[in-house]
Amino acid sequence: MSLPAEFHEIAKRVNNWGRWGADDEIGTLNLITDEVVREAAATVGTGRRIPLALPLKHDGVQSGMIPGRVNPLHAMVQINQELFGPGTVACSDDAVTMGLQAGTHWDALTHVSHSGKLYNGRPADTVTAHGGAEFAGIDKARHIVSRGVLLDVARALHKDRLDGSYAVTPEDLEAAEDLAGTRVRAGDVVLVRTGQVQVYLAGDRERYGYPSPGLSVRTPEWFHARDVAAVANDTLTFEIFPPEIEDLWLPVHALDLVEMGMLQGQNWNLEELSTACGETGRYAFLLSAMPEPFVGGTGTPVAPVAVL
Amino acid sequence: MSLPAEFHEIAKRVNNWGRWGADDEIGTLNLITDEVVREAAATVGTGRRIPLALPLKHDGVQSGMIPGRVNPLHAMVQINQELFGPGTVACSDDAVTMGLQAGTHWDALTHVSHSGKLYNGRPADTVTAHGGAEFAGIDKARHIVSRGVLLDVARALHKDRLDGSYAVTPEDLEAAEDLAGTRVRAGDVVLVRTGQVQVYLAGDRERYGYPSPGLSVRTPEWFHARDVAAVANDTLTFEIFPPEIEDLWLPVHALDLVEMGMLQGQNWNLEELSTACGETGRYAFLLSAMPEPFVGGTGTPVAPVAVL
Amino acid sequence: MSLPAEFHEIAKRVNNWGRWGADDEIGTLNLITDEVVREAAATVGTGRRIPLALPLKHDGVQSGMIPGRVNPLHAMVQINQELFGPGTVACSDDAVTMGLQAGTHWDALTHVSHSGKLYNGRPADTVTAHGGAEFAGIDKARHIVSRGVLLDVARALHKDRLDGSYAVTPEDLEAAEDLAGTRVRAGDVVLVRTGQVQVYLAGDRERYGYPSPGLSVRTPEWFHARDVAAVANDTLTFEIFPPEIEDLWLPVHALDLVEMGMLQGQNWNLEELSTACGETGRYAFLLSAMPEPFVGGTGTPVAPVAVL
Amino acid sequence: MSLPAEFHEIAKRVNNWGRWGADDEIGTLNLITDEVVREAAATVGTGRRIPLALPLKHDGVQSGMIPGRVNPLHAMVQINQELFGPGTVACSDDAVTMGLQAGTHWDALTHVSHSGKLYNGRPADTVTAHGGAEFAGIDKARHIVSRGVLLDVARALHKDRLDGSYAVTPEDLEAAEDLAGTRVRAGDVVLVRTGQVQVYLAGDRERYGYPSPGLSVRTPEWFHARDVAAVANDTLTFEIFPPEIEDLWLPVHALDLVEMGMLQGQNWNLEELSTACGETGRYAFLLSAMPEPFVGGTGTPVAPVAVL
Repeated sequence: MSLPAEFHEIAKRVNNWGRWGADDEIGTLNLITDEVVREAAATVGTGRRIPLALPLKHDGVQSGMIPGRVNPLHAMVQINQELFGPGTVACSDDAVTMGLQAGTHWDALTHVSHSGKLYNGRPADTVTAHGGAEFAGIDKARHIVSRGVLLDVARALHKDRLDGSYAVTPEDLEAAEDLAGTRVRAGDVVLVRTGQVQVYLAGDRERYGYPSPGLSVRTPEWFHARDVAAVANDTLTFEIFPPEIEDLWLPVHALDLVEMGMLQGQNWNLEELSTACGETGRYAFLLSAMPEPFVGGTGTPVAPVAVL
Repeated sequence: MSLPAEFHEIAKRVNNWGRWGADDEIGTLNLITDEVVREAAATVGTGRRIPLALPLKHDGVQSGMIPGRVNPLHAMVQINQELFGPGTVACSDDAVTMGLQAGTHWDALTHVSHSGKLYNGRPADTVTAHGGAEFAGIDKARHIVSRGVLLDVARALHKDRLDGSYAVTPEDLEAAEDLAGTRVRAGDVVLVRTGQVQVYLAGDRERYGYPSPGLSVRTPEWFHARDVAAVANDTLTFEIFPPEIEDLWLPVHALDLVEMGMLQGQNWNLEELSTACGETGRYAFLLSAMPEPFVGGTGTPVAPVAVL
Repeated sequence: MSLPAEFHEIAKRVNNWGRWGADDEIGTLNLITDEVVREAAATVGTGRRIPLALPLKHDGVQSGMIPGRVNPLHAMVQINQELFGPGTVACSDDAVTMGLQAGTHWDALTHVSHSGKLYNGRPADTVTAHGGAEFAGIDKARHIVSRGVLLDVARALHKDRLDGSYAVTPEDLEAAEDLAGTRVRAGDVVLVRTGQVQVYLAGDRERYGYPSPGLSVRTPEWFHARDVAAVANDTLTFEIFPPEIEDLWLPVHALDLVEMGMLQGQNWNLEELSTACGETGRYAFLLSAMPEPFVGGTGTPVAPVAVL
Repeated sequence: MSLPAEFHEIAKRVNNWGRWGADDEIGTLNLITDEVVREAAATVGTGRRIPLALPLKHDGVQSGMIPGRVNPLHAMVQINQELFGPGTVACSDDAVTMGLQAGTHWDALTHVSHSGKLYNGRPADTVTAHGGAEFAGIDKARHIVSRGVLLDVARALHKDRLDGSYAVTPEDLEAAEDLAGTRVRAGDVVLVRTGQVQVYLAGDRERYGYPSPGLSVRTPEWFHARDVAAVANDTLTFEIFPPEIEDLWLPVHALDLVEMGMLQGQNWNLEELSTACGETGRYAFLLSAMPEPFVGGTGTPVAPVAVL
């Protein structure tokens, strides 16, 4: 079995290997220039801040469908411990074990490989248990502040949320652009809302993951044409489950991460943001979504914030 | 043994219990109004982004001095695994175990208690192993974007870094304000640079923690007078080690977190920021330092970014 | 709400506080004398060894019913890593995160408290996040080798497995003794087979835990009368779920662990042992079930072995 | 760089690939027959039990020398929690994160590979992050009860402990046999005492690991000739550090585990056992050292016990 010809055709068209040099480890994040950030800061209107992360907790979004990706286990190592003697100031301290991609997260460019290759043509086997992703680990992606644009596809299609297994197309993205009243441009971080996170918020972890709407295999070309810096959505895996093309699993991951070198975000809660943008009619904002710099990480929890 | 009268005198003067209501869980973060954020966005000049987090790795800043606070252990649960069959897109996934306050972090208001009380007068025993800090856990502090001001005390005192056990005083903070050319005001997040993190960066974890410069027990009143929203610095424990007043350990924690309800940050790398501010002469900027929303967490890793 | 009078009546009758001194931390394990061990060794007939632990894996017995008790997460930190240079001997190493009571385990005497007390009358608050169970932690229980006796209640009652919520009574234990052809005596470790583990082995984790047969609140007196050293069974919680007496949860834990100071084991796989004992008609054997000496642990994984 | 000819010469002489079939996953553990176990049980004299595991705790033997092999982090998830309502029986529960080879442990046969091969000629890349060691993981080695023989080399050489970097030779093993008054025979588990663990017990973790006495590259042939089932000692790495032959690291691992298929144990505390054997003059006993059945584990903590 191998990836179909159709996949390889698209791959050629969106490939960015070498575009920022043979040693580049951050891909389309290169498109976030200082100028883009200045313009992003200029979008701030009211000063309202909307956090986009789901709470990190043991009954988080992971249902066991993705092997080894565990919800956070929070445990205490100190509780009001008077470390310096009775009557002194008392400390509480905690430890956590979690999958780096268990909650609201960024994939690193090296989260997936295909045909033995990572982004920029590096061999897949540079990811090791010893060092993790020594090339293009998430610790390299340290500057994610840019203009954010909410493409509220659910709202544009007059839905509370898209149906399970709905394929979001480039046409849908453009309908959402029309709603937003802005064009997506180079360096933007695009947030695509399907409304699927409502299923999790309503308490159904299983159905949140499957079936799920997601981004069509046709969208990477659109993001490539617009020179988007990164894309996040409000689903468990970013993609359509079950897949759009039979037996072709995770094609968008392979195109976005490996071919284009474009970071993807998942499990972002875009509900409050959707309401706020709907009220004001303004869908562009300053977005800060800094990765935690886990050395060699193939992903990271992130606590994004939109400043409107 | 109990806390000295001197401590209780200061505590009275900085106490904010009830100021934002009996049920308030975020303390001085209430001071970050939308207006403060608008003004913060307006400080953005060049659009340059400077990340302030230290890399998260197994040989991080923790030396074992603080019991149970472990550096991140990064381990792989998938490496280029073709989960959907041979020749399909391959996934890498990782898991981490770490102390929530192991690296660059925010303390939650409930990280310490004294005299059996937490911030806002809540009983200390509301922190449990079962739920962590159900009151005023770090998950409540979800909006930390504001104006950041670097008070570069080391530079103001013409030092590369302050001496071990140096006590940063209100007068030092004002000298750094003079250097910065701005006054700290309500809602600001203040970053106090001692230069101590250089010791860690040079490879000496033990001496990074001890002896260490830190903030004098006299500083909480100054932060209170200015209505600062949060304070972070570039040391392991925020405070002077060994302590400024014999046998009085962590007094600043007790005053800032418990009495004032003001978040503290530690292990922030302010070196690159110091250089950048020194070059431009501008020490105020937009700061985003969003906590990861660990439910019940008494602290959180944070990946702060200054946008200049 | 408090524990009913009926509970306190039984508690008085089985209480062993002070029996081995006010500072004793191992309770009925004191009953395993050298003589008992010599006799246990003398029971070895064929030399056949039967392991009694369930595999430790991510899809282990925990279903989420018991908060914070996580199945093992196994992750790699080295895979065939040539740590000493190319072409050298290559190492693989792994790390695990798990609840100490997640699989086949022993409870420590301090796993439960009631009315503010632990075994031997110690205050419950001697268990802390800082040190775990400093009194009577599982690290103190380091010598569990004795005569093992399988009381195969399911077989004695001519069942494959007991019904969910069946209460194993002292009379059932005596019927199993008759089947075994031996009397339980001082220092024995008794293994009570319900057959319930078959539900887990057949793939139904939820129903393994609930409803479940278990030991009646009347059994502690029987174990006390026989001076048993420890008891283990093949269920998730040892007890009947839902409980035998309405709203009285975990009474047997409170009686066995707190009052009697007798260790309990859960999730022991007694199926192969049952078959072997049934074939030979011999139900007594040498049992080794050494706790892993986790300092301050309130439980421990154990890999018991019966030597027939 | 590759392994020297000398290594390959020895490898040929001790190789057991195919000896127990092409699919065998337990190697020399096959030598522990029921008859061996019967004889082991017959060695029990006094009934005294001596545990051989070091306490599992955060300041355990790992000093950071071995990357990723972390001492246990013990944390609480419940402390006297009245899960079923106020006044009910209260539960304490804990979780742990640790390297499987962090303390007193067994190596799985797959802990090391050389020249791309594991025991029985299997490809090294059958160890994956997804499943760990699917071939010959520690979960396969589930019956380690046998005759134990203490070869007290330190005592035989009239030393408290052997010097750092001392190479224990076959001649030393035979001197210890003379002291023991027994011959090592097929199926025995041999415990080789160097006394090195005293360095750790005295508080010096660094020097415990390096320099360290260990087993000479000449010993695998001796163990092979005697058809030993497994060997453990009281050092951090089993081997001599720095190595006996310059630049030849871990040769004994490669010979014992890969070529011979013989399990190795490390960090066993043989001090109390040495004293007991010295007093009675009897160095053979029943040994139970059951691995925890971590599925895919390349090692496991073990709590061995000698029954004298």
